[in-house]
Amino acid sequence: MHEERIARTMENLASLGISQALICDPLSVWYLTGYYVEPMERFFALHLTQRGSRTRTTLFCNELFPTAHGAAHELITFSDAQNPIALVAQACDHTLPLGIDKSMEARWLIPLMEAGACASVRLASSAIDDARSVKDQNEQELMRIASHLNDQGMEWLAAQVHVGQTERGIAERLPRAYRELGAEGNSFSPIISFGANAADPHHEPDSTPFVKGDMVLFDVGCKYKWYCADMTRTFFTKKPTSLQLKVYDTVRRANEAAEVMIRPGVSFSEIDHAARKVIEDAGYGPNFTHRLGHQIGLSVHEPGDVSAANPDTVRPGQIFSVEPGIYIPDTIGVRIEDLVLVTQSGCEVLNHYTHEPVVLDV
Amino acid sequence: MHEERIARTMENLASLGISQALICDPLSVWYLTGYYVEPMERFFALHLTQRGSRTRTTLFCNELFPTAHGAAHELITFSDAQNPIALVAQACDHTLPLGIDKSMEARWLIPLMEAGACASVRLASSAIDDARSVKDQNEQELMRIASHLNDQGMEWLAAQVHVGQTERGIAERLPRAYRELGAEGNSFSPIISFGANAADPHHEPDSTPFVKGDMVLFDVGCKYKWYCADMTRTFFTKKPTSLQLKVYDTVRRANEAAEVMIRPGVSFSEIDHAARKVIEDAGYGPNFTHRLGHQIGLSVHEPGDVSAANPDTVRPGQIFSVEPGIYIPDTIGVRIEDLVLVTQSGCEVLNHYTHEPVVLDV
Repeated sequence: MHEERIARTMENLASLGISQALICDPLSVWYLTGYYVEPMERFFALHLTQRGSRTRTTLFCNELFPTAHGAAHELITFSDAQNPIALVAQACDHTLPLGIDKSMEARWLIPLMEAGACASVRLASSAIDDARSVKDQNEQELMRIASHLNDQGMEWLAAQVHVGQTERGIAERLPRAYRELGAEGNSFSPIISFGANAADPHHEPDSTPFVKGDMVLFDVGCKYKWYCADMTRTFFTKKPTSLQLKVYDTVRRANEAAEVMIRPGVSFSEIDHAARKVIEDAGYGPNFTHRLGHQIGLSVHEPGDVSAANPDTVRPGQIFSVEPGIYIPDTIGVRIEDLVLVTQSGCEVLNHYTHEPVVLDV
Repeated sequence: MHEERIARTMENLASLGISQALICDPLSVWYLTGYYVEPMERFFALHLTQRGSRTRTTLFCNELFPTAHGAAHELITFSDAQNPIALVAQACDHTLPLGIDKSMEARWLIPLMEAGACASVRLASSAIDDARSVKDQNEQELMRIASHLNDQGMEWLAAQVHVGQTERGIAERLPRAYRELGAEGNSFSPIISFGANAADPHHEPDSTPFVKGDMVLFDVGCKYKWYCADMTRTFFTKKPTSLQLKVYDTVRRANEAAEVMIRPGVSFSEIDHAARKVIEDAGYGPNFTHRLGHQIGLSVHEPGDVSAANPDTVRPGQIFSVEPGIYIPDTIGVRIEDLVLVTQSGCEVLNHYTHEPVVLDV
């Protein structure tokens, strides 16, 4: 599995004209080796280099971290008193360009250049990002389970809505609820919005108390074996007004218009357009203020937007969110979000919680 | 306040021979302007440049973020469809070096170099890090309050230790307890270790149940108005054995030997040595496996270790942790940690929770 992932990354690098790279995103290193640490302010990176027909992989790791031995890589450790950059510079071919992933920080990158580790540094994040974008069978199954657990999490959330509850109170109990379902806590800081708070798409849960009649928006995700779920549903807590129902129905049709057209060869921008057109046709175009979605996997936001700015066509194995919304300041916010997996002939929607309008019994 | 902070940063830059810099750590931007966003994958930075006798500050900010107008800076906004690097390159003097803070990621730094924004990039993080290291009166008072609330948090934690509790169960309730005390939740992921789990200094709370007689270690911190607390106490839950008492007493004497010698002009390495010598003299030298401490403020770990590797002398206004520990694998772990503020003639210990051995009534 790791060999195949490394091979795909090296092919991507080769197509950029690069034969060595340094990967420092801990999740990318985990993806390529099965080894994970959270290095904080310490240096940690995987060096990949093509040597004839084989790839040599070398992991640079502070000796304070748990043992990083693995079949797939050589290991070079160092203490806090040593300069890891000098060790990396020795391992690099200084006559060749060095690919760098997007998350390498200046604290390492500038000394690496000053040490003459390579002929030039090249931003080569797309090589690893593209490999991570197309999920293999094992990853697809983990993403399916994560979304299934998230569907159950949404049921738990819907049951928490009562007078006397605050947004933050529910948010604080959510990680435990996920764990009791068999997931590993939040994949991101949950958005829980009562009433007009939902008109801010990035509202943070606060001490707002629930008032009967408020619409309630949950944008939440759990993790399962490293993989992230992410979904949104918006609930009613009394018979909806005609405005509420019109907004909800528009968002729902936008979501479904996008989901129904997803298949290999369709572009991300076309998918975004399909949802956006439904909302524009209903007169709410200016109220849909963000991209339609984002790719997801080991990180909750992975590169490759579902937006007008992304002309790439989707490929089988890619997983992304479809999350249209309508936001009317100080009045109402509705968003309906699923994760979808691109298949050979269409897409599999990973979330199964209903899109029907639901009036909670509060 | 912000003008004085910017002036100090510019002086530090000047002493590095640099007259323009790009700061992208969101907490550093907040420190210099009072404006905060969490930019995630979007570009966000403050450009500082010396123009004759005055400093020009320009904030680059995605238009999706809340309005960033402020008296202290010019504002340049851009949409997701625009390339922010081209805008930054226009604002920079491309004939001069450009200082960069340590957290700028390759995704921005490499395109910035390729755009010819400057004569060269220079790692100039110390300019802003050094400014942040010396806390002004206002910051000192916030750090004092944060530690006072953390002392009260420790009282709450000590009262949670009962048969039937797990490490994770207590950890999950801690953010709410902090909020009820008037703090703003965790400043870092808490370490809560029962029994031999404490022998791993970075143990993560898990499902380990409390057993009467276990020693219990809490390494926790809250935030108050952006500023971070951090302290550790280790408790007994039955009459300690002679080994337990010897280890505890050694760690306590190490902590106090360090705290008593802190004053302007003493070096971080001398402070580390004072604590380490007490532990070495008791025969536990190899069991004290980490640096004595770290600086702290807006971030829980700020540059400038309290370790043998740091020969700098401490200055009034600096705040750092003093946290000696002894770890015997599979057996025992004890750590006692306070935050200290360097004063004109000594230091003020910001934590007041007792160092005496405490046997909890469980």
